[in-house]
Amino acid sequence: MTDTRAWTPEEFEARLRALGSLYHIHHPYHTRMHAGELSREQIQGWVANRFYYQISIPRKDAAVLANCPDREVRRRWIQRIVDHDGDEHAEGGIEAWIRLGMACGLSREQIVSQELVLPGVRFAVDAYINFARSSSWQEAACSSLTELFAPTIHRQRIDNWPDRYPWIEADGLQYFRNRLSQAHRDVQHGLAITLEHFRTREQQEHALSILRFKLDVLWSLCDALWMAYVEGKPPYFCCERPA
Amino acid sequence: MTDTRAWTPEEFEARLRALGSLYHIHHPYHTRMHAGELSREQIQGWVANRFYYQISIPRKDAAVLANCPDREVRRRWIQRIVDHDGDEHAEGGIEAWIRLGMACGLSREQIVSQELVLPGVRFAVDAYINFARSSSWQEAACSSLTELFAPTIHRQRIDNWPDRYPWIEADGLQYFRNRLSQAHRDVQHGLAITLEHFRTREQQEHALSILRFKLDVLWSLCDALWMAYVEGKPPYFCCERPA
Repeated sequence: MTDTRAWTPEEFEARLRALGSLYHIHHPYHTRMHAGELSREQIQGWVANRFYYQISIPRKDAAVLANCPDREVRRRWIQRIVDHDGDEHAEGGIEAWIRLGMACGLSREQIVSQELVLPGVRFAVDAYINFARSSSWQEAACSSLTELFAPTIHRQRIDNWPDRYPWIEADGLQYFRNRLSQAHRDVQHGLAITLEHFRTREQQEHALSILRFKLDVLWSLCDALWMAYVEGKPPYFCCERPA
Repeated sequence: MTDTRAWTPEEFEARLRALGSLYHIHHPYHTRMHAGELSREQIQGWVANRFYYQISIPRKDAAVLANCPDREVRRRWIQRIVDHDGDEHAEGGIEAWIRLGMACGLSREQIVSQELVLPGVRFAVDAYINFARSSSWQEAACSSLTELFAPTIHRQRIDNWPDRYPWIEADGLQYFRNRLSQAHRDVQHGLAITLEHFRTREQQEHALSILRFKLDVLWSLCDALWMAYVEGKPPYFCCERPA
């Protein structure tokens, strides 16, 4: 007989955390990155493409607000938008990401023009925004739970990059430092919403499939980078260009 | 001084057709396919993944209808939905695609369950549906103009596959035969709408960027197949699976 008993909150959280084995930290683009094996161009490609993810996050979070009738939730969730967009007190995550790119040798114009953003990256990230738009705010909150796994990857970069990529200016890593504390706070909120909202076994399994979808977004982003920057097959690499 | 004169209809059509140099017929997955170099599994992977595109086409076309207030246009455009979904007279393109998959050794269940559909394929195809939903019907019509380039690729398959993939049952190729005449009729309509609607140079250049977006969708789909079936790096290939 199939076990259809709802998981306890502890069991459910453990199932969510177990999906960390599929986090993009295990993608070969990232394992090479952490091993110090990426070229300058491969690092730049990652930063320039990941920028499209960074600028999409506040739009995703605004979609959560737009779908959420609960003022208390909105009062907490709005901080995520401010964290990325900045305000009069802090420059915000998007600006910090641009500074990371410049520390890697890109110009501000190359980054903000999105000229290096690959179509596969755009499609994956847009899928995430569209999911947040067309789902309930609790489902969108659940999809943010890859934050559970983010501190490890940020910590790795802070620890390893100065040694392995000494050509990257050290103050460019400020984005990762900021995210260590922000991600901890954010994930507590997203996790509380998820554990509270998804109660039956069927709902809990639906939550796992949502987190899987988000993991697919991150993995697919790395695949597009691999194809372009490791395989050396960016879009239309073998085509004659139209006049 | 920049030339901002509008192109004549003939010049504009020539610019649209020139983008055929970026059609996925030039992607290495397709050049290998036509050279007879793909394995049984690689052919099956293509058919199973492309199925997600096939089933999305009628939804894309329904989005065009939903955005189109012109009854005459709707009366012509609706035929595309019938062509794919079928009716009491014809089984339709989706069923023909399933038969192609079965001729390649897949089971109907493997195809319709979408179990082989890669996330990167899903994100690219969903981007196409979302474009049709959120754009004007004329822009969506313009995005369908990759049909300009489709007859050549269908003809190649009809001509080459019996020799190069003799293990594929010949009547499985009926989908490609049907599309030769349908695509010719469809592209006349899509082209007429595009030439009529995009009049100024700025609008014409916007139309070219729309067709580029659609070419990106098709190319990205092939990239995901390459990563999984040629590179041997399907999603999470190197991950421990969660319990």
